[in-house]
Amino acid sequence: MANYHKLEAKTVDELKDIANKIRIHSITSTQTAKSGHPTSCSSIAEILSVLFFNTMRYKVSDPRDPSSDRFVLSKGHAAPALYAAWAEAGLFPASDLKNLRKFGSDLEGHPTPRLNFIDVGTGSLGQGLAIANGMAYVGKNYDKANYRVYCLIGDGESAEGSIWEALAFASYYKLDNLCVIFDVNRLGQSEPTALGHDMDTYRKRLEAFGFNPIVVDGHDIEQIVKAFYVASNTKEKPTALLAKTYKGKNFPKIEDLENWHGKALGDQADRVIQHLQGLLKNPGPSQIHPLKPLKDDAPAVDITNIKLASPPSYKIGELVATRSAYGSALVKIAKSNPRVIALDGDMKNSTFSENLRKYDPTRYIECFIAEQSLVGTAIGAACRDRTVPFISTFATFFTRAFDQLRMGAISQSNINVVGSHCGVSIGEDGPSQMGLEDLAMFRSIPGCTVFYPGDAVATERAIELAANTKGITFTRVSRPATPVLYSNDQVFQIGKALIHRKSNKDQVLIIGAGVTLHEALNASIELAKGGIGARVMDPFTIKPIDKDGIIKNAKECGGLIIVVEDHYPEGGLGEAVLSAVALEKNIIVKHLAVQEVPRSGPPNVLIDHYGLSAKKIIDAARELIKLF
Amino acid sequence: MANYHKLEAKTVDELKDIANKIRIHSITSTQTAKSGHPTSCSSIAEILSVLFFNTMRYKVSDPRDPSSDRFVLSKGHAAPALYAAWAEAGLFPASDLKNLRKFGSDLEGHPTPRLNFIDVGTGSLGQGLAIANGMAYVGKNYDKANYRVYCLIGDGESAEGSIWEALAFASYYKLDNLCVIFDVNRLGQSEPTALGHDMDTYRKRLEAFGFNPIVVDGHDIEQIVKAFYVASNTKEKPTALLAKTYKGKNFPKIEDLENWHGKALGDQADRVIQHLQGLLKNPGPSQIHPLKPLKDDAPAVDITNIKLASPPSYKIGELVATRSAYGSALVKIAKSNPRVIALDGDMKNSTFSENLRKYDPTRYIECFIAEQSLVGTAIGAACRDRTVPFISTFATFFTRAFDQLRMGAISQSNINVVGSHCGVSIGEDGPSQMGLEDLAMFRSIPGCTVFYPGDAVATERAIELAANTKGITFTRVSRPATPVLYSNDQVFQIGKALIHRKSNKDQVLIIGAGVTLHEALNASIELAKGGIGARVMDPFTIKPIDKDGIIKNAKECGGLIIVVEDHYPEGGLGEAVLSAVALEKNIIVKHLAVQEVPRSGPPNVLIDHYGLSAKKIIDAARELIKLF
Repeated sequence: MANYHKLEAKTVDELKDIANKIRIHSITSTQTAKSGHPTSCSSIAEILSVLFFNTMRYKVSDPRDPSSDRFVLSKGHAAPALYAAWAEAGLFPASDLKNLRKFGSDLEGHPTPRLNFIDVGTGSLGQGLAIANGMAYVGKNYDKANYRVYCLIGDGESAEGSIWEALAFASYYKLDNLCVIFDVNRLGQSEPTALGHDMDTYRKRLEAFGFNPIVVDGHDIEQIVKAFYVASNTKEKPTALLAKTYKGKNFPKIEDLENWHGKALGDQADRVIQHLQGLLKNPGPSQIHPLKPLKDDAPAVDITNIKLASPPSYKIGELVATRSAYGSALVKIAKSNPRVIALDGDMKNSTFSENLRKYDPTRYIECFIAEQSLVGTAIGAACRDRTVPFISTFATFFTRAFDQLRMGAISQSNINVVGSHCGVSIGEDGPSQMGLEDLAMFRSIPGCTVFYPGDAVATERAIELAANTKGITFTRVSRPATPVLYSNDQVFQIGKALIHRKSNKDQVLIIGAGVTLHEALNASIELAKGGIGARVMDPFTIKPIDKDGIIKNAKECGGLIIVVEDHYPEGGLGEAVLSAVALEKNIIVKHLAVQEVPRSGPPNVLIDHYGLSAKKIIDAARELIKLF
Repeated sequence: MANYHKLEAKTVDELKDIANKIRIHSITSTQTAKSGHPTSCSSIAEILSVLFFNTMRYKVSDPRDPSSDRFVLSKGHAAPALYAAWAEAGLFPASDLKNLRKFGSDLEGHPTPRLNFIDVGTGSLGQGLAIANGMAYVGKNYDKANYRVYCLIGDGESAEGSIWEALAFASYYKLDNLCVIFDVNRLGQSEPTALGHDMDTYRKRLEAFGFNPIVVDGHDIEQIVKAFYVASNTKEKPTALLAKTYKGKNFPKIEDLENWHGKALGDQADRVIQHLQGLLKNPGPSQIHPLKPLKDDAPAVDITNIKLASPPSYKIGELVATRSAYGSALVKIAKSNPRVIALDGDMKNSTFSENLRKYDPTRYIECFIAEQSLVGTAIGAACRDRTVPFISTFATFFTRAFDQLRMGAISQSNINVVGSHCGVSIGEDGPSQMGLEDLAMFRSIPGCTVFYPGDAVATERAIELAANTKGITFTRVSRPATPVLYSNDQVFQIGKALIHRKSNKDQVLIIGAGVTLHEALNASIELAKGGIGARVMDPFTIKPIDKDGIIKNAKECGGLIIVVEDHYPEGGLGEAVLSAVALEKNIIVKHLAVQEVPRSGPPNVLIDHYGLSAKKIIDAARELIKLF
């Protein structure tokens, strides 16, 4: 602490004033909106004032500048305070704050990247820290730049397990460029938090999780400034600033009281604003200004036009699991772009993401068995287009991170998810390990592109396409080895199905994907022996689905479709096809899917028992043709 | 420790032998299955031996006996060891173990309640402790019985945030009848865990989370016995037994080595079995036996035939939010059955679950902002039919617990989930708070009944039905107040839609639910003015959906259906309807849903902007009738 210079009294006064101006803005904007969380803003006013006007180094004119410090407001409901801080910093006129929560205004109820100073959407609690980890990991290990990452967490949301996953990650990877701030204001939404103001327990927990914990009075400017100084000089471990604060601080008769969460102050507003104005030493424009980065040291990065370093090289008929082809493709795109990275949750030897670790260990991030951290870290790593992350584990374990994925769409995040071990085809491990709802989950995410490649060639091209596709992508890969179907020069496009076994007198269109594509092909061969022409479609992507292709081919096949998928009936391939033909009279869809919680057993036994085998497809085709 | 009696040497030898027999069974059963996790079994062999033959009090003949101690194997992949322990305890012949992982055998790859000694399915990691919390909470606070709850956690899975949510819950509620055992065997699936054998950090973390931590050598019978004794005599806080163990313990040339996760021993098996047999002092039947409960002190509980204590009493046209009606219904069913309980994640004043806390604070469990813990605790509380839990928070925040819900179906759990604040109709808080994928999620859960009541009367009856319905139920309720539509004596049935505004010359069937049902009714009134008969359907349940009712009414309306839902297009009401009419020629479906990530704004503005308003329905109806 030898080099720490105490602040001038004038600076302290200015920072205090900015804090109270943030409070006033938070009240007036939520008054106009008639909703919002002014008391949650008030507890963090001094923290924001210090961060934005003393500690952080950033460019107000270019909020996404790659060399600037980052700030993640994990407690997104305090958005009005954050908006006020940026307005005070000069990014936009404070008068714009009155548009808070209005339709069409980007100053939404919770922050989203529609605003250029927001990297990720927050508002679902407990998600900010994993994202900050991703940013800090990239800053330290890939950008090797001086920017620091700050993440502000509410004490209420610190009950989320995702926070503790992220804390463990940050200390394991020695992210000393990360500083997390706990706003311990004692009050949740509906009652006091479990720990209240027990700062000592927070300190013990953070210490046990490998942080440098510093307890401060969160309304004392000098303590906060000094703590951030200590944080920036602490090496090999991240710092946690544990700020004891009060909800509604400086709001007389509201401060530290229950039943004020998420409410505009209503008829109390004028009184409180008057009180706050009385606290200002300088009611005019602030005399201090944000600090710019010391140097622009983040490298230029290009993540466009990523290609497989070499084309697929398989033999038709060769048995290759699509999960294995994923591992091969990952290395190929990593060879062509140094910013392709992989993250996994201790499944790398099952998902084959370990291939990248073998090729270049620096580009593999082990996230251990913590899927929320896994996804959140990737979202953070993808921010500001610094990396192209691929995230893998068993498909079904991504259900653990559905909320992060959902928020990822709001965050306009470009992450690539790869889920292996889908469906009953995994066999003996049983239902807990089978992805049977993953298509439903990923289809429901706005803008998500869902690949379901049918063989190794298609998988390599899916991964190449995913790397270049905006938004979230999901690629569903399978455990068992299946025959290579496509020649190495086959072209694949998003939203474009591929047709197999077409004739002029087809009576039914069978749509299968992954393992069921192979069952469908076998069914078609058998049906042909009995004189029934069954065309087979590989949709390649489930979202977007090839609507025109489905309708055209179905019409050519007499309007009869069979969809067969290794997934529960709801939300998957079957319903995607139904949506595609929703406005078509004369097209009907017979849907084969897993109708109940399956059992353990050999893959082929399960595929047949749950109605997905070539044999069951043949039965369905014959019955359908008979009926219609 | 004055009363602790050191074990006789003979007993120690017997317990050691049982541990090694468990090891042998784990090897032989996985050899026969050619897959499984024998090394993960080996690290817990002494722990299981002590628990099942010295510490726990239970009835082998009646594994679900309500007064017996409970055991949850959170690291479900060690199932063969658990099966072996029960076989050694005498529940079934050890020769049955050779059926491990065979199709049709209940000895599945990971445990499920198809087995009578399993309360909940495990295998998705990190979920066991919250469930154990639910059991322990019920034992301490509702059953007021002496049974204790033991939960065995792998060190790998302790990276899951859900574990830390659950630890915080257990200490907050002083669950001294709970004992958690950490199997710290140092090795994950694909590499060592983040903490390895750093027992001191585990101790600090557990202490900071309010546990009584006891570090033991997990292969030392006496240390384990003594620690469990200390645990059972520790009051006001739960105990964590931190067992330092070795993966593959007593497997020469395999013990403590990497690359042995999840593999049968193959050609190493005979050698290892021979070694283990050499360790046995008594290779014959064990001379010690499980201990029965000291008394049968858990009360008889009846959770059947639960009714609203009084019928709905609303006026038609009165404005009532369905979330508010949920709060009323909850109290009414709680009045009629003392085992109805509510759990919430610090949203009780928004979801109205606080109504039950006001009526009877002992039957409300605050789970704070930790949705995985919320759902897991409820699953535990529902085990052995001890309670009827209702769980509420914002609908979209249940995405945080999708994995728990998915596993809940495998667990055959009877829990009732209520999600409020669905859709864009919440307004200004913005997309992070809007449930727009919840129907897709809950529909994908096998056996889940999904209620989407259209008014307050329907909501009360939905909650009454939910309380009596097996499996998971989900009830979707809305934030805004909407008019009461149904008379107080209206009868509602699962899978039975209700029809409004029917005539003999209807040209279109409009299906809406929740807020869109009201928009549909308004659209129908307007369309009638223009001479177009638009029948309106309230499906009441989305799963099961009234397939026959939809087909019949659609046919009576010329085969034209409009579905309008406050949800993303995928996996919700629209696709449920499409699935219902999949095999119908001459029925087409126009689907109105939220097509992109919405913005903040007033509810009515959003409902119109995203295409769900009466006006947009009218436009769609006119266009549809013109086209077809």
